[in-house]
Amino acid sequence: MCRWLAYAGEPLQPSTLILETKHSLVAQALNSPLGFETVNGDGFGIGWYGKDAAPGAPPALFHSIEPAWHDENLRELTQAIESPLFLAHVRAAAGPPIQKTNCHPFRHGHWLFMHNGALAHFLRMRRDLMLEIDPELFPHVRGTTDSEVLFLLAVTHGLQEDPVAGLGRAIRRVEEVAQRHGIADAVQGTFAVSDGRTLWAFRYSTAHRSRTLFHSVDMTSLKEMYPANDRLEVFGAKARVVVSEPLSDLPGAFVEVPESTVTILDADDFRTEPFLAG
Amino acid sequence: MCRWLAYAGEPLQPSTLILETKHSLVAQALNSPLGFETVNGDGFGIGWYGKDAAPGAPPALFHSIEPAWHDENLRELTQAIESPLFLAHVRAAAGPPIQKTNCHPFRHGHWLFMHNGALAHFLRMRRDLMLEIDPELFPHVRGTTDSEVLFLLAVTHGLQEDPVAGLGRAIRRVEEVAQRHGIADAVQGTFAVSDGRTLWAFRYSTAHRSRTLFHSVDMTSLKEMYPANDRLEVFGAKARVVVSEPLSDLPGAFVEVPESTVTILDADDFRTEPFLAG
Amino acid sequence: MCRWLAYAGEPLQPSTLILETKHSLVAQALNSPLGFETVNGDGFGIGWYGKDAAPGAPPALFHSIEPAWHDENLRELTQAIESPLFLAHVRAAAGPPIQKTNCHPFRHGHWLFMHNGALAHFLRMRRDLMLEIDPELFPHVRGTTDSEVLFLLAVTHGLQEDPVAGLGRAIRRVEEVAQRHGIADAVQGTFAVSDGRTLWAFRYSTAHRSRTLFHSVDMTSLKEMYPANDRLEVFGAKARVVVSEPLSDLPGAFVEVPESTVTILDADDFRTEPFLAG
Amino acid sequence: MCRWLAYAGEPLQPSTLILETKHSLVAQALNSPLGFETVNGDGFGIGWYGKDAAPGAPPALFHSIEPAWHDENLRELTQAIESPLFLAHVRAAAGPPIQKTNCHPFRHGHWLFMHNGALAHFLRMRRDLMLEIDPELFPHVRGTTDSEVLFLLAVTHGLQEDPVAGLGRAIRRVEEVAQRHGIADAVQGTFAVSDGRTLWAFRYSTAHRSRTLFHSVDMTSLKEMYPANDRLEVFGAKARVVVSEPLSDLPGAFVEVPESTVTILDADDFRTEPFLAG
Repeated sequence: MCRWLAYAGEPLQPSTLILETKHSLVAQALNSPLGFETVNGDGFGIGWYGKDAAPGAPPALFHSIEPAWHDENLRELTQAIESPLFLAHVRAAAGPPIQKTNCHPFRHGHWLFMHNGALAHFLRMRRDLMLEIDPELFPHVRGTTDSEVLFLLAVTHGLQEDPVAGLGRAIRRVEEVAQRHGIADAVQGTFAVSDGRTLWAFRYSTAHRSRTLFHSVDMTSLKEMYPANDRLEVFGAKARVVVSEPLSDLPGAFVEVPESTVTILDADDFRTEPFLAG
Repeated sequence: MCRWLAYAGEPLQPSTLILETKHSLVAQALNSPLGFETVNGDGFGIGWYGKDAAPGAPPALFHSIEPAWHDENLRELTQAIESPLFLAHVRAAAGPPIQKTNCHPFRHGHWLFMHNGALAHFLRMRRDLMLEIDPELFPHVRGTTDSEVLFLLAVTHGLQEDPVAGLGRAIRRVEEVAQRHGIADAVQGTFAVSDGRTLWAFRYSTAHRSRTLFHSVDMTSLKEMYPANDRLEVFGAKARVVVSEPLSDLPGAFVEVPESTVTILDADDFRTEPFLAG
Repeated sequence: MCRWLAYAGEPLQPSTLILETKHSLVAQALNSPLGFETVNGDGFGIGWYGKDAAPGAPPALFHSIEPAWHDENLRELTQAIESPLFLAHVRAAAGPPIQKTNCHPFRHGHWLFMHNGALAHFLRMRRDLMLEIDPELFPHVRGTTDSEVLFLLAVTHGLQEDPVAGLGRAIRRVEEVAQRHGIADAVQGTFAVSDGRTLWAFRYSTAHRSRTLFHSVDMTSLKEMYPANDRLEVFGAKARVVVSEPLSDLPGAFVEVPESTVTILDADDFRTEPFLAG
Repeated sequence: MCRWLAYAGEPLQPSTLILETKHSLVAQALNSPLGFETVNGDGFGIGWYGKDAAPGAPPALFHSIEPAWHDENLRELTQAIESPLFLAHVRAAAGPPIQKTNCHPFRHGHWLFMHNGALAHFLRMRRDLMLEIDPELFPHVRGTTDSEVLFLLAVTHGLQEDPVAGLGRAIRRVEEVAQRHGIADAVQGTFAVSDGRTLWAFRYSTAHRSRTLFHSVDMTSLKEMYPANDRLEVFGAKARVVVSEPLSDLPGAFVEVPESTVTILDADDFRTEPFLAG
């Protein structure tokens, strides 16, 4: 029900992608051609890992319930910092109240998580799903979104040891609970997970009709394709973006992430694997 | 740059028009087919005269910088009160910051004022226009919009004695100052003014290409046209709405207010007169 | 951790008690001589029943996370309405985030509830207490406070049929869960409950050392004591206030509500009964 | 009417001084023993120069109208950044509305300015003082505080060429305008000005009874005085703080800035000079 963007690569001012491109995340907040909702004005969040931070250091968060397009703190902040890995999100609320504790990304330890999509009929499943969360983690539920519950469910199921397996098991649990309640097409979404070194970007829905997700092609190729494009100069050779919708109209710059896959980016590698595809 | 609505008639819950009709003001905030901007998410305001208030009692104000579509206080408030005359406004900011002091309607004594449109190149004219405000009124400038300056300029020029003449003289002053600065098409807008008994709704622009404005037809006729329409039952015989865009798709329910006119509504009368038409 | 005030009697502008007395609720927000915290700046709420509302009609709510002392909407609203029964609350957050869904009073159907105090070590008990809530009511948990959980637990245990018994049973359940967790002195508080006709004001803590609570003496006596006091003229003969701290320094105007009691006010009656006193 | 703090020295997490010391700025917001008001809950601001920023690069700003003590973004941000020179401010509003555009510090180009105190009877002088602002600068007036007007008046009078002379001339102009209006004791305050390399901290009032201001002693001496104090380890040898009230109770750590002086800090120098002392 939202739009999101994740970046990994050389340290970058987040404003470059969030504010300054033609179809930047903030531009998408006001007008999202591929979104389920046209307007995503119900909160903004960014989580970023520090440029000089020690491995395992927790990322910082900025959450705001002002519409992203007129939030001056967001503008100042995303120009003042540089980060080698950040996740940003604009929300179109589907029910849960507009409050900072419902803004993505969510953080647990040094992990970040964000989600575009929904768990079907979440209010009917909410109690059962909250019971599935590890009691030790229960006090960490700070908001009232389906996304946060899914995240803590994935942590319960081992996300911190193996993000792909952990999120996969959590989604399967949601689908089982949904079935018990007679709810079809339980899970719908694109998901981003990071530990500060690696970025996992998932596209999955129970009905195999997920929201859109794209990743940028590798920057060296892109610069060869568009040698005269000054706007690309700011990006390093390792820069990669995964995003709900292409940030630009440059043909060839963005590639769709396939249904039921996970795309994994880190400093040395970029690959896409099947996810709950069976 | 905004959308507005004014109601006069039998006491009515403002939510009826602001939240519940098909193209209610809040629906227009999210999607305004006739608006200059599609999204009007940069603040909301309502000013209302009390049902039992003494003549000359000041109206109450509610201003919010949350987008109107998710503001629960707005929802609660506009259902809890009834008012025989209220003005409501959703803002799409054209420059001045998003803050309550920049939200319409503006109040002076028992007068209310709101505006959709803009003074061209306001920042270039701002100092000169503020100097034109009666020094006694200068401390009343609380925000930084062109609209508030125009309102206090109209008060300076006698709006409280004669709203049509007062606003007319203020607009002419703006046009003169604009000319001195080499600014064309200085004034653009639709304006609502009220003292709690009468409602004046203006449509005027220097270039004679104003934003849209409509008024509802008289309720007795409308009910005759649509005898089976239950939604009309809530409205009394004197109910009238003036609004930036029709609130419904009922053919014949709304009539366009002509360019360079003022529509005047009070308990006994409804008439349209020329305004700065010469 | 907060301050609250409840009024029942002839319809009254809430601003009279919330803003205008010497130790008004908003004055207490800035400086509370008897409070556990000196400053109560973490949110405000008012719930009010309409002057002309039908029996059983739900009350309206206004919640704000701005400090009460500079909230202009609060000032406007509490002067614009009149209500025969309202509950108002200023919050000093003890942990749960500052957000409107954590502001008191809470509403369920046509019932209101608010609380000053705390459940000890709530985060350790939260999961068990949420499980005690009727699964049908679980989706109504909108915030993350101990107070809201206690309210829905009381609804689970029959508050809507018998508020004294319902809240009593809920408190006993909390004390049992606390004992299981090795938590002493589980419940601490003063509580207000209303259905729009009757107001119940409780003072209770497991350790029998509850926060302060006072009620005003009957208005006829008070006016006889202070015949020259113009400020009392605004109050009708049935006006009663229950409040965390006296609103004025008038000797004899406020009487302390005893430990382990409930004070019950309605149109015809005023009485105090033991509550969980055994 | 406020409390402020300015730091210059080795790059430092602002949270160290804003959140973590015993009498940190946020602690002072809740309880300011030396302040004119006890509570400073009407907005927060920080302006910081980047650690790696080029000379002359503008500082970043974060302004918030939430009380500083519960603002999670403030907590996250001031831990995520490091800065060699920052200014931070908590506001207790004396009249002008609570809005971000009224939060200190104010920025013009690469200059920052903040103020604790007031211009007496500002509303009576406001029009005349705004007219004194260079018309080219007039559009930069974004809020409605006396402090911002004084800052732009100082820019008008050459602050960017010579901060001491520029602010001095601006204060003299205010005193002249005040005299014309029959207003005594026109200026009252402590002021901080910076260009990113140097910090000027002024203490001045027309009546020579200014608000308190302190600077820390040099860090090498302080560490010698308190060799066992671990909390000092985070500070480099050049670290200096100027602040409305001492941040700690360490005897000898803070020295009062004398009336009618300016303290000037930069990388190589620390000195105090007379200011408008004649």
